[in-house]
Amino acid sequence: MGQKIITLLTDFGLADPYVGVMKGVMLGINPNLTFVDITHSIPSGDVKRGAFRLFTAYKYFPNSTIHLTVIDPGVGTKRKPIIVETNNYYFVGPDNGVFSWIYAKEKFKVHKIDINRDWRVSNTFHGRDIFAPIAAKLSLGVKIEELGPCINTWVEFKIPTPVMVGRSIHGEVIDIDQFGNLITTISTTDFHNLIHSGTKFEIKIKGYIIHELKTCYEGETPIAIFGSSDLLEISLPNGNCSSFLDAKIGTKVVINYFPFI
Amino acid sequence: MGQKIITLLTDFGLADPYVGVMKGVMLGINPNLTFVDITHSIPSGDVKRGAFRLFTAYKYFPNSTIHLTVIDPGVGTKRKPIIVETNNYYFVGPDNGVFSWIYAKEKFKVHKIDINRDWRVSNTFHGRDIFAPIAAKLSLGVKIEELGPCINTWVEFKIPTPVMVGRSIHGEVIDIDQFGNLITTISTTDFHNLIHSGTKFEIKIKGYIIHELKTCYEGETPIAIFGSSDLLEISLPNGNCSSFLDAKIGTKVVINYFPFI
Amino acid sequence: MGQKIITLLTDFGLADPYVGVMKGVMLGINPNLTFVDITHSIPSGDVKRGAFRLFTAYKYFPNSTIHLTVIDPGVGTKRKPIIVETNNYYFVGPDNGVFSWIYAKEKFKVHKIDINRDWRVSNTFHGRDIFAPIAAKLSLGVKIEELGPCINTWVEFKIPTPVMVGRSIHGEVIDIDQFGNLITTISTTDFHNLIHSGTKFEIKIKGYIIHELKTCYEGETPIAIFGSSDLLEISLPNGNCSSFLDAKIGTKVVINYFPFI
Repeated sequence: MGQKIITLLTDFGLADPYVGVMKGVMLGINPNLTFVDITHSIPSGDVKRGAFRLFTAYKYFPNSTIHLTVIDPGVGTKRKPIIVETNNYYFVGPDNGVFSWIYAKEKFKVHKIDINRDWRVSNTFHGRDIFAPIAAKLSLGVKIEELGPCINTWVEFKIPTPVMVGRSIHGEVIDIDQFGNLITTISTTDFHNLIHSGTKFEIKIKGYIIHELKTCYEGETPIAIFGSSDLLEISLPNGNCSSFLDAKIGTKVVINYFPFI
Repeated sequence: MGQKIITLLTDFGLADPYVGVMKGVMLGINPNLTFVDITHSIPSGDVKRGAFRLFTAYKYFPNSTIHLTVIDPGVGTKRKPIIVETNNYYFVGPDNGVFSWIYAKEKFKVHKIDINRDWRVSNTFHGRDIFAPIAAKLSLGVKIEELGPCINTWVEFKIPTPVMVGRSIHGEVIDIDQFGNLITTISTTDFHNLIHSGTKFEIKIKGYIIHELKTCYEGETPIAIFGSSDLLEISLPNGNCSSFLDAKIGTKVVINYFPFI
Repeated sequence: MGQKIITLLTDFGLADPYVGVMKGVMLGINPNLTFVDITHSIPSGDVKRGAFRLFTAYKYFPNSTIHLTVIDPGVGTKRKPIIVETNNYYFVGPDNGVFSWIYAKEKFKVHKIDINRDWRVSNTFHGRDIFAPIAAKLSLGVKIEELGPCINTWVEFKIPTPVMVGRSIHGEVIDIDQFGNLITTISTTDFHNLIHSGTKFEIKIKGYIIHELKTCYEGETPIAIFGSSDLLEISLPNGNCSSFLDAKIGTKVVINYFPFI
C-alpha cells in the first residue's frame, strides 16, 4: 500500500505526551504511516482558530491525506465524533464546527463515527481512544460506510467574509501568527475585483492608514501585503504588528477606494 | 525488515538542534526508522517527572517499539548507560531511576551498555554518542547480549502510591499537565475497590472539597474526573487548576468515604 | 529508491502551520520522505544564528541528506534562492549568508535556482513555493543542473574565529542554548594546540575566572567544559549561565596560559 499521510492539528501542545500517544495508537493499527504535525498550539478549546488554521493548511497535502483534527472542548459530552469526506481528503474530529471552513470551500459528506461497544473510551482523551484509531483505519482502506452512517446535520459556524459597502470593503482580522502578522478576511479576489491597477485606495485599521501594497517585508511602519493564503495581511517588518497596533482577532479592517465617498 | 519505531523522551527542548542530531545519528545506522516524539519538555534534569511521563505513554506503542529516554543530569559521570528489556519493549537511557515506573509495572531485565573503546564520546551529549546509536542498533535486530551484559543492580526510586487509612485514601499530585490539570496517584482501581456506586465520598485538596466524579470538563469550579491514564485528576474547566488551587507536585489529595469517621 | 532524508531548519516556530505545509508540499512531490526537524526556533530573521545551528547539526546526518534551511528575512526581495552542493549533502535556502559555515568547512558549489515561469510564487512564503519543491525534486534524483546554473558569487559572512595574542586565546560567545549554556568560538584544537596537559591557564568571561576544565556538569559555580560540538562551553550546573554572568552572543572569552604575561 505504501505510506499513508495523516496530519495532526490539536490544542494539546507538545509538552505533554498526548500527541505522541495518538501516534503510537495509530502505528499499532497501521505501521506504514507518515505523520505531519500541522500545529498543536491552538489555544485550548479555540475551535474557530483551529478551523481557520486547518483551512490554511489542508490543501497543500497530497490527495487521500487524512487530516486528524482534535480541538475538542466538549470531550466526554454528547457531541458526535465525525468523519468528513471531500473529493481529495478525509477529516476526522469532533462535530463542533472545527470543519466549518471545509464545509464552506469543498463538496463534502459527513459520517457519524459508530463507537463499537467493546471499545474502551476514556472520559478525557477521545483523540487517543476514538479519533486516532478511526484515522488509522481509514489509512488502511477501511470503507467509511463501515465506520459509521452518513448524517444530514452537523455543527457549523458562519465563516467571516468581507462586506462591500459603497466604495468600501469591510473585513476583519481573522488570525494572528506568532510573529504578530495580522491576517484579514480580505482575499486578493475581493480586492482586485473592486480595485484595479492604478486605483487609489486606503487601508484603515485601528486608525492607522496604509496607501499601498508591498510585495516584501520592508519599512519601519505597518505595511499591507497579500500573504501566503492569498489574504491581506498587515505586518510590521522586524516587529510585532499585533502589539504595535493593539489589534486583536475581530479588529475591523476597512479599505476605501477612489473616488472616496 | 520494514519500519521500526523509536520514541524519544528528553529534557532537551526543541529550540536547540540536539533532538534532530540524535535522529540523524540513528538514520545513519538504520534508514528505515519511524520516530515519535513523546515529549522534549521535561524540566531540565527532572528524572521523576520524565519517569512518570514515560509510564503514561509507553504502552500505547506497538510491540517491539524502542523507547529512547534521555533525562540525564549525570551525563559525563560514572552513571551507567543501560538497556531495559520487557516482554514488549526496549528502553534505552541512563541508569538514574528514569525507568522506575517500568520496573514497578513490568517484568524486565537490565543490560549495561558496553562502551566500545573506539567510540568517540563527548562530555555532554551521550544522547547522541551512546544512547541513539544503541537504540538504532537494537532496531536493526542486534542482540541485546552483544550490546552489554545483564546486570543485577540498578538505580530505582520508590513509586508514590496511595495509602489507605481508616475510611480514607491518601494520595498526592504526581504530575501537572500544561493545562494545569492535577494528575494524582489515585487510580480507578484504588477508588472503586473501596467506594462503590452510591457511596458518599469527599475529595479534599488544599482545603477544597469535591463531592462527585464528572465524566466531562464542565462547571465553573474544580472537578474530579478519571483521566486518560485511569488516574484521578482535579481539573478546572476552562481554567488552570494548578494556579487556582495553588497545588504543586506532591500536594496531598485525600478521599474520605461514608460513614465518615 | 527508498526513503530520502530532508532536514528542516527555520525561524517559523511550531505554532503556525508553515512547517507542516512545507512538508505537505514535499510529500506531494515525493511520498517517500523522512523529515527531521533540526529546529524551528531560530529568532526571527537571525541568519547568523541559523547558520551556526546548521553547522552544529548538518554533519550528523547520513550522506545525501538534503538540508532545507529557510531563514529568509529578505523573502520577496531580489535575493537569490540557491542550492549548495558539498561532497555529502545538499543545502537549499536563500542566498543571504545562512550557509557561511558550510562554505568555511566544506568543498562546495553553488547553484542559483531557476524559477520556472509557470510557478505560482507568493510574496511571503518561498519556503512553501520555492525551497520545499526544490528540496523534494532533489530527493527524487533530479539533477542539480536542471534546477539552475552554477554561480560564482554568493553572500557570505565572516565566521568568527578566535585570535591568538601573546599567551592568550581571544574568543567570544557564538551561541546560547535554551539552558543558558554559553557556546564559544574556541575549539578543542585551538585549546590543546597551545595549552598542554599540566599547563596552568585561566578562562576569563565577564570578570569571572575559571581555572580548570570539567568533564561533567558539577559544581555550584560556572564551569568550563568542551561540549558536543568540540567547542568550549561555559555552563552553570543546575542554572542558567547566560543570566548568571549576564553574557550575550558576542561576549568576549579570553584564555591566558602560563607563564602569564
